[in-house]
Amino acid sequence: MAITENQYIPAKETIVILTGHSLIAGRSAAGTGGKTTGFNPATNQPLNPAYTLISPNQLQEATSAAAEAFESFRALDPHTHAAFLDSIAENIEAAGDDLLARAALETGLPWARLETERSRTTKQLRLFADVVRQGDFRGVRIDPAQPDRTPLPRPDIRQRQIPLGPVAVFGASNFPFAFSTAGGDTASALAAGCPVVFKAHNAHPGTSEIVGHAITQAVKDHGLHPGVFSLIYGPGSSIGQALVADPAIKAVGFTGSRAAGTALMRTAAARPEPIPVYAEMSSLNPVFVLPGALDGDVDALASQYITAVTGSSGQLCTSPGLLFAPAGEAGDKLAAAVGRAVAGCSGQTMLTQGIASAWHQGVDALSGTPAVTPLGHGIEGETQNAPAPAVFEAPLPEFLANPVLHDEIFGAASLVIRYETIEDLIRAAAQLEGQLTATLQLTESDHDEAARLLPTLERKVGRIIVNGWPTGVEVGHAVIHGGPYPATSDSRTTSVGTLAINRFLRPVAYQNLPDELLPPALQENNPWHLIRRIDGSLVMPEPSHAAS
Amino acid sequence: MAITENQYIPAKETIVILTGHSLIAGRSAAGTGGKTTGFNPATNQPLNPAYTLISPNQLQEATSAAAEAFESFRALDPHTHAAFLDSIAENIEAAGDDLLARAALETGLPWARLETERSRTTKQLRLFADVVRQGDFRGVRIDPAQPDRTPLPRPDIRQRQIPLGPVAVFGASNFPFAFSTAGGDTASALAAGCPVVFKAHNAHPGTSEIVGHAITQAVKDHGLHPGVFSLIYGPGSSIGQALVADPAIKAVGFTGSRAAGTALMRTAAARPEPIPVYAEMSSLNPVFVLPGALDGDVDALASQYITAVTGSSGQLCTSPGLLFAPAGEAGDKLAAAVGRAVAGCSGQTMLTQGIASAWHQGVDALSGTPAVTPLGHGIEGETQNAPAPAVFEAPLPEFLANPVLHDEIFGAASLVIRYETIEDLIRAAAQLEGQLTATLQLTESDHDEAARLLPTLERKVGRIIVNGWPTGVEVGHAVIHGGPYPATSDSRTTSVGTLAINRFLRPVAYQNLPDELLPPALQENNPWHLIRRIDGSLVMPEPSHAAS
Repeated sequence: MAITENQYIPAKETIVILTGHSLIAGRSAAGTGGKTTGFNPATNQPLNPAYTLISPNQLQEATSAAAEAFESFRALDPHTHAAFLDSIAENIEAAGDDLLARAALETGLPWARLETERSRTTKQLRLFADVVRQGDFRGVRIDPAQPDRTPLPRPDIRQRQIPLGPVAVFGASNFPFAFSTAGGDTASALAAGCPVVFKAHNAHPGTSEIVGHAITQAVKDHGLHPGVFSLIYGPGSSIGQALVADPAIKAVGFTGSRAAGTALMRTAAARPEPIPVYAEMSSLNPVFVLPGALDGDVDALASQYITAVTGSSGQLCTSPGLLFAPAGEAGDKLAAAVGRAVAGCSGQTMLTQGIASAWHQGVDALSGTPAVTPLGHGIEGETQNAPAPAVFEAPLPEFLANPVLHDEIFGAASLVIRYETIEDLIRAAAQLEGQLTATLQLTESDHDEAARLLPTLERKVGRIIVNGWPTGVEVGHAVIHGGPYPATSDSRTTSVGTLAINRFLRPVAYQNLPDELLPPALQENNPWHLIRRIDGSLVMPEPSHAAS
Repeated sequence: MAITENQYIPAKETIVILTGHSLIAGRSAAGTGGKTTGFNPATNQPLNPAYTLISPNQLQEATSAAAEAFESFRALDPHTHAAFLDSIAENIEAAGDDLLARAALETGLPWARLETERSRTTKQLRLFADVVRQGDFRGVRIDPAQPDRTPLPRPDIRQRQIPLGPVAVFGASNFPFAFSTAGGDTASALAAGCPVVFKAHNAHPGTSEIVGHAITQAVKDHGLHPGVFSLIYGPGSSIGQALVADPAIKAVGFTGSRAAGTALMRTAAARPEPIPVYAEMSSLNPVFVLPGALDGDVDALASQYITAVTGSSGQLCTSPGLLFAPAGEAGDKLAAAVGRAVAGCSGQTMLTQGIASAWHQGVDALSGTPAVTPLGHGIEGETQNAPAPAVFEAPLPEFLANPVLHDEIFGAASLVIRYETIEDLIRAAAQLEGQLTATLQLTESDHDEAARLLPTLERKVGRIIVNGWPTGVEVGHAVIHGGPYPATSDSRTTSVGTLAINRFLRPVAYQNLPDELLPPALQENNPWHLIRRIDGSLVMPEPSHAAS
């Protein structure tokens, strides 16, 4: 169901008034750098209000406030710190259907998908609140003094992780909640103790503002320095670059295109003080169908594949853009089933006119490539920007030879590659660029082949899935949403899940400090009840007797 | 005591024959790219043998072999893996006095210092062997399946850390053992499961070769792929850059100058696939003397400071190049005591003629600066390249205004800055570039001032020391030898201590894999007896019943 502008009727008790301005350190700030508007992608009509864009001077107000806020924010007690994150989640929920309606209007995404995404976002904030309460991320290590060691006594050395400093976060077009204003980057940076300057994606400015108010309110309610959070609107190519170049900023979180991500990486590396950029950029998310998987219900397999390809109009970081299927008769059956499955699919509104236009360009380039043949396509949607999903097929040698077949097409399109042998498949996997995910469809009879393929896949991706689909990323402690370049700028990290907090931390060691000069996390009597690595072994804390 | 060439008499049972060639994947490889020789810095005489330099093609042999070795090396069982690291330590010890004699000859460093450094190096290798046996670095996380969860069942997701791939390590001039062939970068990369291509520092080629043989022998004795380790000689500006640009290399460890380190950072960032560079580059290691510390034995304080400044001819990454002392009478007494202490110091042979010449340039620049006055200097040594240690003094406003006073002088020189108030001191600390260490000299009466200064120091350094000295880095679990740029290229890491292994790892998640397709570290019955984070909480392993 496409949401039209008329359906945006604020609920009575939570009327949201969009100001059309940035929120700099808790205050509404009318930008002096021009204006932009969001569009309803289902109609290509502009949406009110227009949003003012900030000037470089206004940017500096936000980054200076973040720098000022850093000392008190990083010294926050875990109880208040966690409660602050919980409050953001509550405030987002309190915005109710107004928030969902505005997001639907600005993104064209279905209501149910947006409800799920909002719930994932609030769950994520609460998960990081738990991480802050538990405190393992503080990475306490203690090598106690050995005053009698010869030839020299050993000093007392204690280590903890401290936050890097103010973080710049860039909102993504395709996840107006989970990878935007209060998404995973913001949540993990705030949990680490880093103030956040958030640059909204211009495709959903109203959604960003509503969530921005939710964070600003939580900052106020917990008496934090207002510089802990700013929401800014501005052109990515100038204000975005200036934000990354700003000396107050110490790390960057980004989800978007490879071109934009690598531009930010270059700016960050060229600073007098280079800073880390965590950019999640592009991924084909290959699916490897092993021969045994074709013994089962081939129609169900094809249908699940097409659901993964076309869900959210294919605009997920983890949508499968490639499927490797065996050559031969059984593979032919799968290919035919894929063609039938896609034929029944309607196009859904894409996020923006620009994204829909890029999708058409990508599909045209692929379909114009010799040896690439169409497997099937769906039906164009009734709204604007809702192209018919399309699936193509090509033989493996063409895939190995032609880089065009390795390009990500953002949206509901995918390519089926037919392979002959497991050796061919390993060769193809080895030639892939870095990916977020790889998926194996297999049965027990395929285990030997899968075991041969897995070492290559481990080196190419951040997450390997068996007999599932890469879409629907589970937020938790074990998940990885990351992978080797160019899937992300830094394979050592994840942008989803609790491990994401590590991106914004660095270790400091304290040698022979008197106990009263040590931070609470390192004091001898362990007032925060933290797990500690003592002389190399983890030691569980005494249970806390305080009311929690 | 300076070691002359004649004193290099191999012990009978461990005759070391230096070949003068690289060791590429276990084989001696005569370089086709010219020759270099080491020098005895005490005499400026060249040392035999000359060392052949490799060509770009030969470099590719080393990196290709490392890439080939990676799969089997990273799959090694922990028992063999740890025994391999232990064997390197044993083989280094077996090289006996020959190794120390050659190192003394090539570096001019005193015998006792070299003995200590060798012991630190072998201890470090054995510490990483313990890390491999224990396995916490594998970072196992398990979020078990919840098949009955609504609206959607939760999949089983398991995470572990895997090694990045082949690592390029650059030897440092100033630590021929601990930051060279089998030093901290090599030890932590090998412990992570990464093959190493080691580029020797041309100032101690013979020492590098002896240690290279120790590693190569261990590779052979444990039946590992010979590509696990290569030792190469070549010019840093061409072969070193080519090594970092080589697509087989996935990370870089470096200790040296800021100019060389930042050049490698640029090369790594400009690759089609950018890779992390862990460069430890420069540090002034400021010492902050708080007023109360002057109530004690000022002569002892001055003497300890000068020992830290002049030890190893001041050629330590952690030598204090700055000391902040109070203005006024008590501070004057300290300054006078520093002058007396340095006057009694003899110059010691520096590592190379080039390093001694750079020291002279730095000292000339400092002493030629208005408002910088000499506090005292020592006596020139009897060997070549043994300049007289020198200490200067300047008022704080000059330090705040003039960047020349922030430049590192590598060698036995230091600068005393006189400050008026704690506010001044905080201002000076805030203006410092990133440092490896900061040291506080204080008594209990200074705790309030120290508490005000500490938050600024935490943001500037990797290690804070109270009432000690930054030199003499303790290898353990809690130490940090790192710090914000430009002390290092990456403040999130350390190059000393067990945390250094994290530099060479990245996480991979496995979703719904059948147990027999999971790596041992993640299998349900926990065959490697690893600590595991299950649903967010650490769970200790069942004790192992296997003989260890």
